[in-house]
Amino acid sequence: MVRIGIDLGATNIAVGVVTDEGKILHKAESPTLASRPWRPVVDDMISLSRRALDEAGFKADDLRSIGVGVPGTAIGGMVVFCTNLGWHDVPLERVFREAIDKPLYIDNDANVAGLAEAMAGVSAGVPNSVFLTLGTGLGGGIIINKKIYTGAHGVGGELGHLTFVADGEMCTCGKRGCLERYASATGMIRLGGEAIRTHPHSALAIEAEQNPSNLTAKMIVDHAKDGDPTAMMVFDQYTHYLAQGINSIISFIDPDMIVLGGGVSKAGAFLLDAVRLALKNYIFFRTLPYADIELATLGNDAGIIGAAMLGE
Amino acid sequence: MVRIGIDLGATNIAVGVVTDEGKILHKAESPTLASRPWRPVVDDMISLSRRALDEAGFKADDLRSIGVGVPGTAIGGMVVFCTNLGWHDVPLERVFREAIDKPLYIDNDANVAGLAEAMAGVSAGVPNSVFLTLGTGLGGGIIINKKIYTGAHGVGGELGHLTFVADGEMCTCGKRGCLERYASATGMIRLGGEAIRTHPHSALAIEAEQNPSNLTAKMIVDHAKDGDPTAMMVFDQYTHYLAQGINSIISFIDPDMIVLGGGVSKAGAFLLDAVRLALKNYIFFRTLPYADIELATLGNDAGIIGAAMLGE
Repeated sequence: MVRIGIDLGATNIAVGVVTDEGKILHKAESPTLASRPWRPVVDDMISLSRRALDEAGFKADDLRSIGVGVPGTAIGGMVVFCTNLGWHDVPLERVFREAIDKPLYIDNDANVAGLAEAMAGVSAGVPNSVFLTLGTGLGGGIIINKKIYTGAHGVGGELGHLTFVADGEMCTCGKRGCLERYASATGMIRLGGEAIRTHPHSALAIEAEQNPSNLTAKMIVDHAKDGDPTAMMVFDQYTHYLAQGINSIISFIDPDMIVLGGGVSKAGAFLLDAVRLALKNYIFFRTLPYADIELATLGNDAGIIGAAMLGE
Repeated sequence: MVRIGIDLGATNIAVGVVTDEGKILHKAESPTLASRPWRPVVDDMISLSRRALDEAGFKADDLRSIGVGVPGTAIGGMVVFCTNLGWHDVPLERVFREAIDKPLYIDNDANVAGLAEAMAGVSAGVPNSVFLTLGTGLGGGIIINKKIYTGAHGVGGELGHLTFVADGEMCTCGKRGCLERYASATGMIRLGGEAIRTHPHSALAIEAEQNPSNLTAKMIVDHAKDGDPTAMMVFDQYTHYLAQGINSIISFIDPDMIVLGGGVSKAGAFLLDAVRLALKNYIFFRTLPYADIELATLGNDAGIIGAAMLGE
């Protein structure tokens, strides 16, 4: 028996045929073309699933289940919200099962990536972990006893929207001071923008042509690695924000491991060493063991693998 | 069979004989005299337990287990930290079992109160709840599937030490901007102190004789109820802070219910209505169901009842 995992992104739909152990046997992809209505997007997801299964040499009888990771919120077979795709109350399970009558599971993409790492990645050895995607936003996936934990109403795990600076920066959610305004790639870029205004002759400012909108998180990380004092200051501030956010996660549910994924995590050991060091300043029980902080290891495949692992 | 629940406070030791359903049959109390070394305090806990059991008409054979709620952290039968009592690595289980050879369970007082409410109080009807003690500090008790959840290393549930204002007010834990600096009784009093400096002719300032150190949370609540604009402003700011903290809890683990206990919760419906209203400004998924916010109902008995309910 195999499973299908679907990573529905704002740019691409990636479908994989996956073993029970989380190994990808075959992949198929196509562009999402997210400006379309939801129905043709779902039709593409269905035909990609059939194609991937066929190309991998399996039949419908070999298929145990289908899982979908969405950049939004799913409850009871419905995609309730999916802002980047403009989806609202899309009956994904019903439409999918009319085409392929197999159990369909849907969950948020950060939850799915967290499950993937917990089943086949860096957190495979521990029961409880929290996955953080450090990208445009900050997504969270909570894994308790190897299962995604989304709470009583399915609205938990929104770790980017913990209040981190009451009355602070305005967030896209309409609230002020959310953690993702400070600890996402967007947060790093905002800090960088402030820094190059006051340090217009820094290497970072020169590469960005003194224009904050030219900045990327990679640019800041690279200049910090190269020793530009302005970029180092920005990166240091960022890692202290991230460490305080991580400390809040530890104080709250004390997982075995916190896994860093998403764009910022590509800074690798440079990020990991800085965050682990900064965390020592904030940890509540300094003399007791606390969560390991690690980098995600599955990269882009986490979306497919985690989706395939849903529902068991 | 009955259980013994022990509420070890900085002021009093309260011991109760409790049924399996969480009903207190008999109580015995004595002052903690917390400046003593730990051993005579534990000896008093043991003799109070024997006395309570005897006075209630039970024998050792009738006793299923003993539970202790401590104002600190316990791991593996040891009280690791208990700042108010000056305890550090006290082998409570070993000493107790030498005297009364029954299973002994120890947990933090906020966890224990949360368990009590979840077994015999306001949150008895739901599997997942979070209990908040709004007192000098802010304690948290997380209940998942009717069990206390303290995480992988036993250091979770420290909800007072989530970062709420990065680089904000200095906390007793050595970190800045912890939630308990803003959403505890102490936080309300600090806001009150700032307000009476700028409004020295307010009813609140007059009762406090313009001296912030005379302020109490009850004084602020009472003047807010009476319509003093300065006290109302302070109370409104406080409830907005508390609502943002509650929103973070919802965004994180989305419980069925959040239960408010501790001194500030004595403000009753006046607090509850204000917090529920303020929360609407912050909730992430505004159109989806989220946790009920309720007041604790067991009062001081929660410590005894919850301790007795530990370990099953």
